[in-house]
Amino acid sequence: MLIGGLLHDERTLERDDAPAAISLGDRYFAVRARSEAIASPLSAEDQQLQSMPDASPTKWHLAHVSWFFETFLLSRDPTYRPFDPNYTYLFNSYYDSVGARHPRPQRGLLSRPTLTEIMAYRAHVDRAMLDRIDGLPADLVTLGLHHEEQHQELILMDIKHAFSMNAIAPAYAPADVAQPVSGEGGWSRFDGGLIEVGHDGVGFAFDNEGPRHRQWIEPFRLADRLVTNGEWEAFVEDGGYRTPALWLSDGWAMVCAQGWQTPLYWRDDRRIFTLHGEQSLDPSAPVSHVSYYEADAFARWAGKRLPTEAEWEVAASDLAAEPTGASIEPLPATGSGLRQMTGALWQWTASAYAPYPGFKPADDATGEYNGKFMSGQMVLRGGACITSPGHTRSTYRNFFPPAARWAFAGVRLADEA
Amino acid sequence: MLIGGLLHDERTLERDDAPAAISLGDRYFAVRARSEAIASPLSAEDQQLQSMPDASPTKWHLAHVSWFFETFLLSRDPTYRPFDPNYTYLFNSYYDSVGARHPRPQRGLLSRPTLTEIMAYRAHVDRAMLDRIDGLPADLVTLGLHHEEQHQELILMDIKHAFSMNAIAPAYAPADVAQPVSGEGGWSRFDGGLIEVGHDGVGFAFDNEGPRHRQWIEPFRLADRLVTNGEWEAFVEDGGYRTPALWLSDGWAMVCAQGWQTPLYWRDDRRIFTLHGEQSLDPSAPVSHVSYYEADAFARWAGKRLPTEAEWEVAASDLAAEPTGASIEPLPATGSGLRQMTGALWQWTASAYAPYPGFKPADDATGEYNGKFMSGQMVLRGGACITSPGHTRSTYRNFFPPAARWAFAGVRLADEA
Amino acid sequence: MLIGGLLHDERTLERDDAPAAISLGDRYFAVRARSEAIASPLSAEDQQLQSMPDASPTKWHLAHVSWFFETFLLSRDPTYRPFDPNYTYLFNSYYDSVGARHPRPQRGLLSRPTLTEIMAYRAHVDRAMLDRIDGLPADLVTLGLHHEEQHQELILMDIKHAFSMNAIAPAYAPADVAQPVSGEGGWSRFDGGLIEVGHDGVGFAFDNEGPRHRQWIEPFRLADRLVTNGEWEAFVEDGGYRTPALWLSDGWAMVCAQGWQTPLYWRDDRRIFTLHGEQSLDPSAPVSHVSYYEADAFARWAGKRLPTEAEWEVAASDLAAEPTGASIEPLPATGSGLRQMTGALWQWTASAYAPYPGFKPADDATGEYNGKFMSGQMVLRGGACITSPGHTRSTYRNFFPPAARWAFAGVRLADEA
Amino acid sequence: MLIGGLLHDERTLERDDAPAAISLGDRYFAVRARSEAIASPLSAEDQQLQSMPDASPTKWHLAHVSWFFETFLLSRDPTYRPFDPNYTYLFNSYYDSVGARHPRPQRGLLSRPTLTEIMAYRAHVDRAMLDRIDGLPADLVTLGLHHEEQHQELILMDIKHAFSMNAIAPAYAPADVAQPVSGEGGWSRFDGGLIEVGHDGVGFAFDNEGPRHRQWIEPFRLADRLVTNGEWEAFVEDGGYRTPALWLSDGWAMVCAQGWQTPLYWRDDRRIFTLHGEQSLDPSAPVSHVSYYEADAFARWAGKRLPTEAEWEVAASDLAAEPTGASIEPLPATGSGLRQMTGALWQWTASAYAPYPGFKPADDATGEYNGKFMSGQMVLRGGACITSPGHTRSTYRNFFPPAARWAFAGVRLADEA
Repeated sequence: MLIGGLLHDERTLERDDAPAAISLGDRYFAVRARSEAIASPLSAEDQQLQSMPDASPTKWHLAHVSWFFETFLLSRDPTYRPFDPNYTYLFNSYYDSVGARHPRPQRGLLSRPTLTEIMAYRAHVDRAMLDRIDGLPADLVTLGLHHEEQHQELILMDIKHAFSMNAIAPAYAPADVAQPVSGEGGWSRFDGGLIEVGHDGVGFAFDNEGPRHRQWIEPFRLADRLVTNGEWEAFVEDGGYRTPALWLSDGWAMVCAQGWQTPLYWRDDRRIFTLHGEQSLDPSAPVSHVSYYEADAFARWAGKRLPTEAEWEVAASDLAAEPTGASIEPLPATGSGLRQMTGALWQWTASAYAPYPGFKPADDATGEYNGKFMSGQMVLRGGACITSPGHTRSTYRNFFPPAARWAFAGVRLADEA
Repeated sequence: MLIGGLLHDERTLERDDAPAAISLGDRYFAVRARSEAIASPLSAEDQQLQSMPDASPTKWHLAHVSWFFETFLLSRDPTYRPFDPNYTYLFNSYYDSVGARHPRPQRGLLSRPTLTEIMAYRAHVDRAMLDRIDGLPADLVTLGLHHEEQHQELILMDIKHAFSMNAIAPAYAPADVAQPVSGEGGWSRFDGGLIEVGHDGVGFAFDNEGPRHRQWIEPFRLADRLVTNGEWEAFVEDGGYRTPALWLSDGWAMVCAQGWQTPLYWRDDRRIFTLHGEQSLDPSAPVSHVSYYEADAFARWAGKRLPTEAEWEVAASDLAAEPTGASIEPLPATGSGLRQMTGALWQWTASAYAPYPGFKPADDATGEYNGKFMSGQMVLRGGACITSPGHTRSTYRNFFPPAARWAFAGVRLADEA
Repeated sequence: MLIGGLLHDERTLERDDAPAAISLGDRYFAVRARSEAIASPLSAEDQQLQSMPDASPTKWHLAHVSWFFETFLLSRDPTYRPFDPNYTYLFNSYYDSVGARHPRPQRGLLSRPTLTEIMAYRAHVDRAMLDRIDGLPADLVTLGLHHEEQHQELILMDIKHAFSMNAIAPAYAPADVAQPVSGEGGWSRFDGGLIEVGHDGVGFAFDNEGPRHRQWIEPFRLADRLVTNGEWEAFVEDGGYRTPALWLSDGWAMVCAQGWQTPLYWRDDRRIFTLHGEQSLDPSAPVSHVSYYEADAFARWAGKRLPTEAEWEVAASDLAAEPTGASIEPLPATGSGLRQMTGALWQWTASAYAPYPGFKPADDATGEYNGKFMSGQMVLRGGACITSPGHTRSTYRNFFPPAARWAFAGVRLADEA
Repeated sequence: MLIGGLLHDERTLERDDAPAAISLGDRYFAVRARSEAIASPLSAEDQQLQSMPDASPTKWHLAHVSWFFETFLLSRDPTYRPFDPNYTYLFNSYYDSVGARHPRPQRGLLSRPTLTEIMAYRAHVDRAMLDRIDGLPADLVTLGLHHEEQHQELILMDIKHAFSMNAIAPAYAPADVAQPVSGEGGWSRFDGGLIEVGHDGVGFAFDNEGPRHRQWIEPFRLADRLVTNGEWEAFVEDGGYRTPALWLSDGWAMVCAQGWQTPLYWRDDRRIFTLHGEQSLDPSAPVSHVSYYEADAFARWAGKRLPTEAEWEVAASDLAAEPTGASIEPLPATGSGLRQMTGALWQWTASAYAPYPGFKPADDATGEYNGKFMSGQMVLRGGACITSPGHTRSTYRNFFPPAARWAFAGVRLADEA
């Protein structure tokens, strides 16, 4: 299923470096429409679900991304009439400088405003945005669009988690047919040295991707493709989840406390829960929904390690990005050479999420966007099949706590050269 | 608002001792229709809400009461085709002998089956029930109807709690107008002695209401009406919530841990959250949504005590029951003499919920209906404005944990004669 | 081991109705000395242990009972010089009206004052008490002595729990030898009727034992002796801990959450942890350290029930009390007829702990002694082997939460006549 | 107070690069004696205390360090007779490969073995070690000694925390007199470039300090001395603990949940709890017992940042180490230039604790020493006043979770050059 397939050339439309002919207004329209396309298979009831404090209801996502435009852009115009003053409180995510907010674990209790009202809110914001778009700061509009694309991915992650709690195993969308065959695995070697990483400021990037800076890395190797379900089964069968020596201490505590025995969505009898409902486990597909702790333990078991984010970025910097958004579950690798860098799953790195040298968050409320989360999390690189088209970059820094398993995250191994 | 007002004579229809002319099938239809009338102001999104583990979504209630008929009645007939085999798991509440069940705190995550499917389930069960009703054990059908009436009240309690978490303060129904004036308060005296309490087996009663048995009680007095909001304000202003000497030790621990300062739904500026949304606090209306701990502390502050359940029953046994179901929020007392015994709020008693002498639960699964909850709870007597018409009796034993505040519960004082 | 065996006639000395020749001062001395005798096998390190929030270190008990005399008696005399003003804070247990206090779960962190200092505190209080004893209110002194006797039992309960957490299984005292053989089990019948229960005010009693009042009870039978370990083993082997139908709902939740499979101190291979260290399980000894939930489930399994506290009291009222304090673990029953009413274990009743009709706590701080705990607990009757000699009565009401297992509590069955 | 002052030249004895004339046996004796000197002011009761799961009783530390020698060295010799086979279980800290162990949060419940028995255990191990020391692998003996030195510091950290819970505010040792005056603050500049960090393998180092490797760093500046209490007071007065914009998101959550308003041991009225009991706050002394979150928020408030561990190491590499162990509370800086790098407090860095490139833990059980803790923690550099003499190095990597406050940790600011 191709979400937002209504747009035959959406990738072009959404790229920051797209021809100047693509106006900001057109890109605004394309991104907003895609959110609604993603939500469209879900009923008002489905869109109400919140299965854990870290996740949010679909309809809350749809409202929050609109709140972002209203709060940081439209409210600058004194002639703008807010859709509903209560929404400032209800749909603020974590911006302390904007004010108080509805408690995060209780987002699923907001049956009102209804989905219909939220769709009207979106229309209200859209009309106001399109009226004013030429007068608004383009970089902030662009930030709002990338923000919305992040929530597009969250909608899919979150509904997958919510549906997985239902014994009926609902499907978000029917499954596609024939899965491609997996290609061979191999290794690609890189020289390292005094390299540069980070975004150079040309085109859009989140603040956490810069400043670009020098870093020294030693020669290294990266696995050509992601670890597969079949390889993970060998790890399970070898007692991987029962061998403390393979685990970080915090990871082993999670294994014991949570009773982890397989990746999050694996079920008995080689079945797996997916956005297509329950399916047979495909041994050639990349393993997904593992935590950092599991990724790290697997690498240790395999006698390898996870790449650092700098290593990953160096390897990716010369590659053409593989398309994202073409599938809602990760597909097996095909072909040969360094693959699945962006099109399949986010990849855990060995790097803790920290500010780059010289990083300074913005002075206004958008300074809360990234900087304040720079502790206790690990960086993931790449991009997943459900990541919005054109959304990711080789410098992109995704991040999750090391125990998180509901992201579309997998494992690429690294080694010394 | 009169729920189920469509039935001009529903109270007659639903009474167990109604004229024999009222068939069981007619009563079945009336009770089932009333559940749907109660749910009708709520959207599919509203009916999805679960605001705490003790509460359930409206649509879950609607399904579970149907599950009860399916499990304990229809499944006896081998020709009956279950609507969906998954429902056995999804809509079992707490019957261990029936099998495994969906975890209680996660009932709010069941967006599927949809509300539409659950309404179809109800229709399927209704058709099957009406086809077979003459051949089914009438006492068990009647139990199923009283069970459904209990859930009618729970639907209103639970949605009130869920709506109270929303800063928008949604109204379940528009408010009625002119509130009647409160009558005078006084005391009624009772002689006590060797009395009989408990249900005598004529007409329907839950198992926990019997066996009828002898008990000795000393002379006592009961307050003619319930404690009012105005009286409770005096308690608050006198530091009632800040004076440990007034409280049971467990109660004081709750006051401190939960930060209780007023009844559950009181808000600043003499406002109160109700099923009509946020309203002005009416000082003449009975105080509601207080826990046993608060009721007990208030009684101590007032130099009085709570009645025992035997005292309450003796006093109520000769009274005509006041109508329930005529309002969705409790109204001030009118007139004089012993009032508000059944029409306004459940009333906390000083009695722990325990089996009557000689009590034996049924041998089948319905034996789990009441008996296994006989620890850690307190008995409430009476009936609330939202209790289904004809549902309560002078022998009726309602029960909640002493810290529960979301029931429609108030306070009647007692004293020595 | 006979604690405080130094006193050949201590039971006589401590009885409230002992000959007038026994002065209050002599009784004060005897009780105080017995506390120290109980603590004497324990090192300063042992006396420091607190194994859970409900339990307290031995040395804290030794100090707290002295604080009671200092706070409620000595402080009335302006010439009394407190031993250390900090102790008011450190050794207050739960008296809100006395002021702030050291947090209960952190009593085990008070290495200072040292045990030596606490023994000096005891000596200081003793000297001051004995100097003034004739001028102090005798009833309050007597309350203080009974209070100290309660803590004597707590010292043994608490150290047993603490030692049980140690893989070394320390023994509080060496085991006695030959256990007597168990007597036959049978049933005693009682007529019931309009009886009186509660203390009549002659001699000492705690406030919760009165007022004496009338109550109606039907004819009933009591088991002649307590349920034995051997009988409990049959319950275990019959799947008692795996059969939800036998349990109260809250009890079953505890079984699942805590993983209960046997009484608290049973270990593998028919071993049991005792105050003598780890021993072989004696099938003829009464089962001990079970919760109310377990007692209730066992009774249901056996087709019987637990007695009410009124039934127990009626049965006990004409019996000579069996001696307590003669052993530190319960012994098998010997002889025939109604036995083990006081000498072996406290016995769970079916009665929730509630005020008797007309109960009023004292107006001063001692009013906090009992009344505020009258919710969420069940009454136990009898007296245990470790209860201080002369401490218990047929009207005595002990109480614990239904999940508590560290008390010396066992099970006596009841049935209809 | 100079701990272990009995040894006039202990620093010489304990240095790894001390003259060959100092035998391993002599160093063994010196380190072991110092542990006992540290424990000597504490009674058996004091040594029993465990104030939180992260802390351990003094006597447990004394036993565990002996267990380390017994388990990893003495047990290699089949003629060695273990002191007590239970100790393998009781005093294992976290070595999964050695076997099961006593639960960490319950170490404070081990009144047995007694302190006296533990001292006998130490003597037994010492005798066995000194008999065999020439035949044992010197590197493993040396690891055991450095391990014991780490626990020497933990004993002081842990007892400080335990004593702080006591309203009496016990002093571990009497206070020293005249505090030196604080020196001026300034900045030292460093060029950066392609530098080397990590231990070069000459002399002892923990495994986590290597391998030595190249790293690129840009020019930077370090504050010459640590942040003082006086500077921290300005932060508090400026609302530092009430301004979310200054905090990492996880840090702000801790501020709110724990109610942080000052460093851990600050008290009202400019008082501070110390190992000398409660004292006046010295504004010129370095601020101590702050978490990483607080250090980071302070740096942001000051317009600066924390140093990376590489920056700290480059700056320290040419400095003579300042003595540690000369005081038990940090003293104000004296003199000028880069100071307090090792003699006062550990210093939070901006670096998450992660393996150096090419790091491989040992294959045997000692491989669990450091590697498995490499997630969720931040690196601290330096050394504290209570760190054992000669124990630290410029490559030394200490680590704690970002919320930990009971370590002797302070703040050094960094900035771009």
